[in-house]
Amino acid sequence: MMEQRPVILVTNDDDITAPGIHALVEAVKPLGKVVVVAPDRPQSGKGHAITLGVPLRLDQVDLFGDIEAYQCSGTPVDCVKLARDKILHGPPDLCVSGINHGANHSINVIYSGTMSAAMEAAIEGIPSVGFSLLDYRFDADFSLAGQVARNLSRYLLEKPLPYGTLLNVNVPIIPAAAVKGIRLCRQANAKWVEEFDERTDPQGKKYYWLTGEFENLDEGEDTDVWALEHGYVSVVPVRFDLTHYELKQQIAKDWPF
Amino acid sequence: MMEQRPVILVTNDDDITAPGIHALVEAVKPLGKVVVVAPDRPQSGKGHAITLGVPLRLDQVDLFGDIEAYQCSGTPVDCVKLARDKILHGPPDLCVSGINHGANHSINVIYSGTMSAAMEAAIEGIPSVGFSLLDYRFDADFSLAGQVARNLSRYLLEKPLPYGTLLNVNVPIIPAAAVKGIRLCRQANAKWVEEFDERTDPQGKKYYWLTGEFENLDEGEDTDVWALEHGYVSVVPVRFDLTHYELKQQIAKDWPF
Repeated sequence: MMEQRPVILVTNDDDITAPGIHALVEAVKPLGKVVVVAPDRPQSGKGHAITLGVPLRLDQVDLFGDIEAYQCSGTPVDCVKLARDKILHGPPDLCVSGINHGANHSINVIYSGTMSAAMEAAIEGIPSVGFSLLDYRFDADFSLAGQVARNLSRYLLEKPLPYGTLLNVNVPIIPAAAVKGIRLCRQANAKWVEEFDERTDPQGKKYYWLTGEFENLDEGEDTDVWALEHGYVSVVPVRFDLTHYELKQQIAKDWPF
Repeated sequence: MMEQRPVILVTNDDDITAPGIHALVEAVKPLGKVVVVAPDRPQSGKGHAITLGVPLRLDQVDLFGDIEAYQCSGTPVDCVKLARDKILHGPPDLCVSGINHGANHSINVIYSGTMSAAMEAAIEGIPSVGFSLLDYRFDADFSLAGQVARNLSRYLLEKPLPYGTLLNVNVPIIPAAAVKGIRLCRQANAKWVEEFDERTDPQGKKYYWLTGEFENLDEGEDTDVWALEHGYVSVVPVRFDLTHYELKQQIAKDWPF
């Protein structure tokens, strides 16, 4: 009797040509049957956007050797929905997203297309994880991140998380030998302080470029930002039930309505 | 000595011409100095997307009588960021988003541009709330939702929530006299089951329309979906710290890394 190999869906937000997704495919290839469905153009910062009012395109591409791969004209979340409905015709055993070029720790989990793709899979009941490397460069070295991705993907295939959860994994830019461990963390309390760059076009009309500085407001030593600054890979268990239960109890005490 | 009136930022995702945002402006006008910054085109389902790689436009418009108003070419989250940095030059006392044409209960909080705008304000430390009416129609009756928006906005101005939280308010389509109350709830566990509508274009190439059916997986009587089905306005306290603390503790017990 043949053993059934697990089906692993690979996606990202940097687009299907990004070195990060190629590193991820290489990392998880030994673990199962890999299928890639990823955006045909950069989708960074798209959060949990879906495409409404515009139809989607899906084209098979030959970019990963013998691995089945499709590019999609939509957002990372669209990719996961289309993969499940039109390519896999059911849930894969694991969804891995990334490896993102750049950090998705702390508040970035909210803006990240990479993490939203992983979250969409989790909403659909699929064990799911997003990987990010703290290096924006096209020619970043993904060897450590790939190793981490393989180990954590194997872990998730062996011990799927309970429904309603996924993992957010960030990898620092340090040599593999210097890594102190893979540390379970909470999301650091942080934000982006915006300063729009205001310019004037040749017609004399103003326009604005979004720009900003990251501000960590959290001094805790149990956060993802702390771990990454201290030589660890950070892993945050993430949920999509956004209810603030403690606050709900607290304001119920003198709820006037 | 003159009393300082609170500054209230109004935004939405349906766009600045939608009847829902006009109803919201009317609702909160008696409570402070209102400034509107909203998208110049529909932005439903944009989640927490921000605009990267493309500059933004911001134009003052005369759509709300004597109320200062601007339309923005970006997403709902962009609107809040631009409003704070380029129009208000600091945080308003309250951000209200909506009134959305259509439900944003349960998992819809994740996809909704209306709720993401409110969440962005909360990330920036601004007391914040999103309002939605369970009626998609352009000519929906916003009178009950407007009343609810005024009462809850007044409540938030008097008792700001602690940092890190916002409210998600949904209003059922029933006569005001039939409303049983405004009920504190948790987010129902629910999802959309996608079935993409596959078509062929005149060139013989396939394309896909996103379509789906809402599926409530939650039988609890403390959820927003339950409340709305039973004659209540639902209010869910929402957080943007996505850490799953219970799971973190649980998997830490035999974390192998």
